[in-house]
Amino acid sequence: MRAQLKKQIQQAKGEIPADLVLKNCSVIDVLTKEIRTADIAICGDTIAGVGDYSGVQELDVKGSYVAPGFIEGHIHIESSMLCPSQFAETVVKHGTTTVVCDPHEIANVAGTGGIDYFIQDSADAPISIYCMAPSCVPATHLENAGATIGEEAVEQLLERPEVVGLAEMMNFPGVLMQDGGVLSKLNVSLKKEVPIDGHAPGLSGKELQAYVGAGIRSDHECITAEEATEKVRSGMYVFMREGSTAKNLHDLLPAVTEANASRFLLVTDDCHPEELLQQGHLDRILRKAIHLGLNPITAIQMVTINASTYFGFDNLGVIAPGFIADLVVFDDLKTIQVEHVVTKGKVYTPKDITAPAQNALVHKRFSPVFDSVHIKHDTLSFAMKANAQNAWCITLNQDSLITDMKTVSVKIKNGMAVADTERDILKVAVVERHRNTGNIGQGFVQGIGIKAGALASTVGHDSHNILVVGADDDDMCIAVETIAKQKGGLAVVHNGKVIASLTLNVAGLMSELGVEEVAAQFNSVLVGAKKLGSTLDDPFMVMSFLALPVIPHLKITDMGLVNVDSFCHIPLWQE
Amino acid sequence: MRAQLKKQIQQAKGEIPADLVLKNCSVIDVLTKEIRTADIAICGDTIAGVGDYSGVQELDVKGSYVAPGFIEGHIHIESSMLCPSQFAETVVKHGTTTVVCDPHEIANVAGTGGIDYFIQDSADAPISIYCMAPSCVPATHLENAGATIGEEAVEQLLERPEVVGLAEMMNFPGVLMQDGGVLSKLNVSLKKEVPIDGHAPGLSGKELQAYVGAGIRSDHECITAEEATEKVRSGMYVFMREGSTAKNLHDLLPAVTEANASRFLLVTDDCHPEELLQQGHLDRILRKAIHLGLNPITAIQMVTINASTYFGFDNLGVIAPGFIADLVVFDDLKTIQVEHVVTKGKVYTPKDITAPAQNALVHKRFSPVFDSVHIKHDTLSFAMKANAQNAWCITLNQDSLITDMKTVSVKIKNGMAVADTERDILKVAVVERHRNTGNIGQGFVQGIGIKAGALASTVGHDSHNILVVGADDDDMCIAVETIAKQKGGLAVVHNGKVIASLTLNVAGLMSELGVEEVAAQFNSVLVGAKKLGSTLDDPFMVMSFLALPVIPHLKITDMGLVNVDSFCHIPLWQE
Repeated sequence: MRAQLKKQIQQAKGEIPADLVLKNCSVIDVLTKEIRTADIAICGDTIAGVGDYSGVQELDVKGSYVAPGFIEGHIHIESSMLCPSQFAETVVKHGTTTVVCDPHEIANVAGTGGIDYFIQDSADAPISIYCMAPSCVPATHLENAGATIGEEAVEQLLERPEVVGLAEMMNFPGVLMQDGGVLSKLNVSLKKEVPIDGHAPGLSGKELQAYVGAGIRSDHECITAEEATEKVRSGMYVFMREGSTAKNLHDLLPAVTEANASRFLLVTDDCHPEELLQQGHLDRILRKAIHLGLNPITAIQMVTINASTYFGFDNLGVIAPGFIADLVVFDDLKTIQVEHVVTKGKVYTPKDITAPAQNALVHKRFSPVFDSVHIKHDTLSFAMKANAQNAWCITLNQDSLITDMKTVSVKIKNGMAVADTERDILKVAVVERHRNTGNIGQGFVQGIGIKAGALASTVGHDSHNILVVGADDDDMCIAVETIAKQKGGLAVVHNGKVIASLTLNVAGLMSELGVEEVAAQFNSVLVGAKKLGSTLDDPFMVMSFLALPVIPHLKITDMGLVNVDSFCHIPLWQE
Repeated sequence: MRAQLKKQIQQAKGEIPADLVLKNCSVIDVLTKEIRTADIAICGDTIAGVGDYSGVQELDVKGSYVAPGFIEGHIHIESSMLCPSQFAETVVKHGTTTVVCDPHEIANVAGTGGIDYFIQDSADAPISIYCMAPSCVPATHLENAGATIGEEAVEQLLERPEVVGLAEMMNFPGVLMQDGGVLSKLNVSLKKEVPIDGHAPGLSGKELQAYVGAGIRSDHECITAEEATEKVRSGMYVFMREGSTAKNLHDLLPAVTEANASRFLLVTDDCHPEELLQQGHLDRILRKAIHLGLNPITAIQMVTINASTYFGFDNLGVIAPGFIADLVVFDDLKTIQVEHVVTKGKVYTPKDITAPAQNALVHKRFSPVFDSVHIKHDTLSFAMKANAQNAWCITLNQDSLITDMKTVSVKIKNGMAVADTERDILKVAVVERHRNTGNIGQGFVQGIGIKAGALASTVGHDSHNILVVGADDDDMCIAVETIAKQKGGLAVVHNGKVIASLTLNVAGLMSELGVEEVAAQFNSVLVGAKKLGSTLDDPFMVMSFLALPVIPHLKITDMGLVNVDSFCHIPLWQE
């Protein structure tokens, strides 16, 4: 370390040439909001100096803008269906050099082993991927997840240098009710003085004061400028979310003022593969923010210095000596088309980046991750006796994850309940897939629209049991068997045949392929579902939320139907 | 901790009354630069909520402004001549609730034991006093200090929760020359990810890049706006100094812009007792900054959120739930006359504060601190044979610590060199007082102006050996003996009699009395020196810098004269 510092000082003084110099930069100074022409000298992974420098290696950027590398403050990488190393290769091309993720999904499948996998898989990535310790695994007591992460596990996770805080505390009612387990996790994190992310949709007034006072200093769930303003005033950083699902930027920007701008970040929360591929990552959000009228340097501050300050990354987010040489080069302040990226002193030129080889070593080590689908094959069946004429049916709403709770008259054949495609009443089931319990929760759903066959998926928030929806019992079985055999993924089955599938063998959530392949395969299952008659843009996304018993009103888990309003299980049949 | 958090959440929600509520506050929000009317609810030492609250104890501030408690980012408490507990009692009345000090002076006398004393003496203080680990003890190899603080000691100090970083790295040439010992201390601090304060007067260009790149992220030595601007651009926080000696605020304010203001702090560096008593502490600087045209909230940010961000004090510097309840109440944004101060949830009303009892326990424990003056009495003498007619003489400059190096013809009596008051050529000596070596460095000084008697002091930067200046050899002896007997302090002697003295029995640097007594006694020695004919405002301050061999051009240590330009000792006499 001392040898490195010596060399860095010599390079900074210009006594010896720097390892690498970016010549003729229009340096974006996020500390002063100035743009100045200078060279950036780099020694190893660190910026040695900004001024007039010569280097062993030189890259003349010819006046292009150079910003600090972009920092993603909140994402569930699992939403991209890419494993962390593939995700890293994808986003580095868009200028992202640091990612803070909440590995909540994989933790629900594989516990802390899933986080070990994230850390190891991303160890050689061109960017830095940090994890927050998941705070809410399992999400509820109304389902069987693959793991539980308690106070001790959180404490142990926070010992790891790659784990930099407590992930979004979704259980805000638990905070307000002073739930013992929740407060324990908060206390462990407060003691370590790490950032604690929040998740408090619509929370306001004294309840917000109570929630923030528990040490929770960020929120990414704001949907109005008023809500954002109140949260910033309460001491929170507001992460303005512009993901593939929720897009809040337009509504939140009016809350930003010159005086409070340093309290905002731009984050994605989730990123679908096709959006990453076609539109990019944080560069996409920057373009939109700037297009909506935000000062470009203010916008860049929201993915650099603001994020590094929130997370306490003392050596990131600024172009100045002693900071890590994470840099993004682009030639226009509006289009932010990335020309080069420097991560830890190494130059990446997007067009030259190829996907990494799959990491065989990681495969073998993490069986809970790569062998995560365990179902009872011999008893698998979706045949269901009709116990009554009427049953509860989960009824979808357009453009909302909130479902209605409706009574329907069930179609009965030889005493057995079957799907009724004429009324779009399909069968839905959740098959426990972690511990081989044989649990299957069954019910009905209206709004998916397929006229035949079945759709199945191992992506089902938050426990990620298998979701299957079908017009035909046998096709449902085949769909589930197919994704079990793939060790995770999505499948579309029609008349006994698999017409499309996507393998997600990493915890049943992610692929090890590159973004192009994943996006293409994902598209093929969407096309397959459309062929079966689905009218939804993405029936798998809709299915993935059918098992999340914290969104009103009627949901289904492996343990059966859940009335979310009363937060308990209810019988399917109405006598 | 969990019980406390439960109670805080209940109070925040308004379910039970808060422990303390400040009613009807004009809350200064340093996150948004807004002023909003609200109550502030406090649970224990923490802010529970800001809104409409009732409390067990209520204090109606009737619309007065309430700011976060002020944070002093850089001071040598020793400059106040007050021990830390007395300093705390003095500054809390002026709204200061947190102090980060560099205990560099006491460390030169008593090593890490001196820092132990600082921590223990301030443990029960109404404010929080944090230390930086001194980086440059001893200051040079040209003198004998009371202690050495090496890399291991720095590492051990940084383990203590009260030690929050590495203190000003004054040895900037050592950084630039990649001195092994200096880099080791930096590396230890970089590894711990603590702030490292700088001290780099006039450093610019590539040398500044090299210095900052070594992890040094602040500077309090700027004297021009251009210098401050360059340092902020280089990644440093600029601490604008407005102390009792150096007053840089007026010259530096033009460097502050709306975009870079968050990178500035207001600090004192040194505070003399009479200035503390008559003009206050950070409130004094705020008044001046606002008077000079700085936006009041921007100025307040410089002693609150900016400081807490720099030091990583995540729970200080903001009025929001979960932050420590350190608050200042004042009724006018220009005069900043403090009405009440809340520190860790406890209300102080300045007019009610009385000085604390002396802490007898501390006395006994720290003999290196309370028994720090060790001289050889039997050989003490300032008689000096004239080895030649001409000798070097330290010549003072008005309003500058830089001295000239002049040759004078010495007055000789019976072969002995004596003072010549007609030409204001006095004798000056530095008596080693730490290890009883008997070392005495002798020489001549022009510019002090006393016509008779002698002045002596145990305050002599940075090694704090005894400085004595005299027109009479015997009076010099008596002055030294007097302060040795007092175990430290200042004395004025005339015709064999002590005409004024100030006891500084804490390491020979500080008193245990309150600020009123210390200021009064200090004033008496200044009056005494004036009576002897001194024309200087504060001859003791001038004397205290005569032994600092890093300020050009001629200085004196216990080891003899130092030519600062060649950085080595030189003989007194010119053959």
